[in-house]
Amino acid sequence: MESSEEQKLQVRKLELSDKSKGFIELLQQLTVCDSVSDKDFEDRFRELNARAEDHRVLVIEDARSGKIVATGSVFIERKFIRNCGKVGHIEDVVVDANARGMQLGKKIINALTDYAHSLGCYKVILDCSVENKAFYEKCGYKQKEIQMVKYFS
Amino acid sequence: MESSEEQKLQVRKLELSDKSKGFIELLQQLTVCDSVSDKDFEDRFRELNARAEDHRVLVIEDARSGKIVATGSVFIERKFIRNCGKVGHIEDVVVDANARGMQLGKKIINALTDYAHSLGCYKVILDCSVENKAFYEKCGYKQKEIQMVKYFS
Repeated sequence: MESSEEQKLQVRKLELSDKSKGFIELLQQLTVCDSVSDKDFEDRFRELNARAEDHRVLVIEDARSGKIVATGSVFIERKFIRNCGKVGHIEDVVVDANARGMQLGKKIINALTDYAHSLGCYKVILDCSVENKAFYEKCGYKQKEIQMVKYFS
Repeated sequence: MESSEEQKLQVRKLELSDKSKGFIELLQQLTVCDSVSDKDFEDRFRELNARAEDHRVLVIEDARSGKIVATGSVFIERKFIRNCGKVGHIEDVVVDANARGMQLGKKIINALTDYAHSLGCYKVILDCSVENKAFYEKCGYKQKEIQMVKYFS
């Protein structure tokens, strides 16, 4: 029973057709995200795809509804420190409000973390609100520094 | 007098020859950074250069000593949120311990911030220790979130 549920909620790479499966509406649950035109979406999708392994957007599609119910992205930073090491940066993680309680957030974080690890990153970092700290601790993350920001608009 | 000092401490892009001007030794003041072979340095330098405008390492060379005395990097993340917006991420900022008190840190941060702004980023973010918070506030940054990390090695 549970494994059949699992099969309907697999993590996979973002596809161009996900725009029509509610991907942008899902991101709108996270933050400011006006509707994106098909052309803008496709342009950005291809830009990110051109970065190949250095930028990965993962999604979970609910096979029953055909809707994207969770997403998160990771990009790989190449450094000189740590013997020209690599660091994974996780961004834009969101689970659909109607799909909470199924551990989809953890599933996405684990998949993004594993991906960065598989590419040889020595660490993965992310910024979150204090309220979300406990969730990321359950995913094996620890608080280290503080995030500073400067907005232009 | 002061403007002549200024002229000797200009911000510029990292060059391949900076390895022989103490660039790696400067990074070693920041964190774990074993000596890097010329080949590894050149490979990483070219990888970053291939990313063109999306990854910029800036340095300040002291024209009197021919040594790199400050550095910092910024890379540009392309998102779907914020109308397919862009975010600048500042990393690996360090000023030589013997060159403190000349506002070189602020000079580097301002240059990295301006660079991200010029590319149309809607914000710039960075992670720092609580001890360095006041410095970044002087550069116009505000604390927002917390940084979580998972180390693999």
